[in-house]
Amino acid sequence: MRIWIVGAGSWGTAVAALLAKHGHRATLWGRDVEGIRAARENRKYLPGVRLPESVGFGTDPEAALTVVAVPTQHIRATLAPLPLRGPFVSLAKGLEMGTRRRPTEILAELFPGSRAAVLSGPSHAEEVARGLPATLVAAGEEPLAREVQAAFMGPTLRVYTSADVVGVELAGALKNIIAIAAGIGDSLGLGDNAKAALLSRGIVEIARLGVALGAQRPTFFGVSGIGDLITTCYHAGGRNLHVGREVGKGRPLREVLEGMSMVAEGVWTSRAALELAREKGIEMPITEAVVKILHEGKPPRDAVRELMMRDPKAEARDWGA
Amino acid sequence: MRIWIVGAGSWGTAVAALLAKHGHRATLWGRDVEGIRAARENRKYLPGVRLPESVGFGTDPEAALTVVAVPTQHIRATLAPLPLRGPFVSLAKGLEMGTRRRPTEILAELFPGSRAAVLSGPSHAEEVARGLPATLVAAGEEPLAREVQAAFMGPTLRVYTSADVVGVELAGALKNIIAIAAGIGDSLGLGDNAKAALLSRGIVEIARLGVALGAQRPTFFGVSGIGDLITTCYHAGGRNLHVGREVGKGRPLREVLEGMSMVAEGVWTSRAALELAREKGIEMPITEAVVKILHEGKPPRDAVRELMMRDPKAEARDWGA
Repeated sequence: MRIWIVGAGSWGTAVAALLAKHGHRATLWGRDVEGIRAARENRKYLPGVRLPESVGFGTDPEAALTVVAVPTQHIRATLAPLPLRGPFVSLAKGLEMGTRRRPTEILAELFPGSRAAVLSGPSHAEEVARGLPATLVAAGEEPLAREVQAAFMGPTLRVYTSADVVGVELAGALKNIIAIAAGIGDSLGLGDNAKAALLSRGIVEIARLGVALGAQRPTFFGVSGIGDLITTCYHAGGRNLHVGREVGKGRPLREVLEGMSMVAEGVWTSRAALELAREKGIEMPITEAVVKILHEGKPPRDAVRELMMRDPKAEARDWGA
Repeated sequence: MRIWIVGAGSWGTAVAALLAKHGHRATLWGRDVEGIRAARENRKYLPGVRLPESVGFGTDPEAALTVVAVPTQHIRATLAPLPLRGPFVSLAKGLEMGTRRRPTEILAELFPGSRAAVLSGPSHAEEVARGLPATLVAAGEEPLAREVQAAFMGPTLRVYTSADVVGVELAGALKNIIAIAAGIGDSLGLGDNAKAALLSRGIVEIARLGVALGAQRPTFFGVSGIGDLITTCYHAGGRNLHVGREVGKGRPLREVLEGMSMVAEGVWTSRAALELAREKGIEMPITEAVVKILHEGKPPRDAVRELMMRDPKAEARDWGA
């Protein structure tokens, strides 16, 4: 299969290598692609991983599948000028600032009539590139989801199909809010019990918003939901976890963000999620606490105390919704 | 409220201290209780935590609530001779060997007509005793579940109610199987992506068995399910995680168990769960791999390879069941 990977960050590069190993004709395209071609290595974003000889570099307008591996905020500007027609598989996790569009919604706007799936799950690029096992969910209409599954699945990558594009995209975007909260908790020294509680209750409130926006609840409790959330909150070096840890130490958000070269999507997503929750009349106490800490200067310990002292509740009261 | 805590291990001791702080008349009973009374500290199981002066020691047959804080395998022998009538709240996580009974089922057999709830969730005793925040689920018939919630809930402990006793008890017992698998994965160096996948897919297969045994599926995706599983798999020092890590290094199970002073419930539970799964015609690929590695000498790497290469699947195919 001819596959064009647009975006040569760490994940796009790892995916190009993986698809080439699976025997596909993979072509990688991105800003620094000539340097990557020369070195046969992406020294900036995926150092130490040699790319197979069969990986091509440049454009491939004839590809049977286009992998979108650019950050959500850059999809529109990057893809609009390219000779693309789909079908697409998006690897992006986020909501577009301003429009609050999901990645596949942006693709549908840019390329009307095209088909787009999303592929998401716990997948740190370095681990996948090193051949360590991982699982992903390919969500989309059939037969596209099964085609993506067939292209990506191999001895070290297990891919499940799903019809819930909305759920998989929202889970990938919203989990970054909980990762920021986890980082704050880490810096406050709240411990393992509290961190597990945060993840469990965090996925419940994210699912609540997701369902109101058209997602299927089970998606949030699967590999691309709680699974991705777990790695995001325990794998050192994540950007959102880092932001939370620094803010949890008492540093102002502006200062933390100025010191980072990459975007921590959760900072912006937390505001968008809270707006959406208010529009839909949905309770998101953890998200609300994150917004207050990040954007309104609330002391993290006060926010934790308030979360613990909310009215006693039944656990699964809104599950049926 | 007069509360009698039967069992003076780490969790029973921490709970006695907590309930006394909440203003209850808490009485702690267990094998070493005279030594604990003298030291006002449980030096063996909860060193460094001074017990409040208001904690009593000994028996309290007039208590309005009895907390069962002994390991599942000891409930029958320990409680049968005691002057008890309930209501009970069980803290035990396991299935009784031979009978495969849940803790509240054992209590119902021993004390016919008594009421019993279960209280479970991510709750390492040392953290709770140090006043770090934690969450639990109190499952039982009303008004008992709400009474337990009221007794335990406080500034550092948040308690949710649930009607799903079967689910909360099975989640607490079965998660130990996945913790063993996580330990094996740690020793094989499988990485964070694989560990998150294991937890996500592990809770799905545990839920599948639980539902067949009368549990509510959402329970497994809540605080006492995935929440407890997360701490069990990430908190260093857990017994089941330890067994998995040692077996993952290639040590024989018998040798690993001989070196431990406490029981790793998951070793036995894995066999019981697989028997139950076969009786019910349910797929539990991770549990099956754990049983083969622990009890049949299968090389862990072979088991991982087989798990990754199973037929391609849809993710949530059995969710509706």
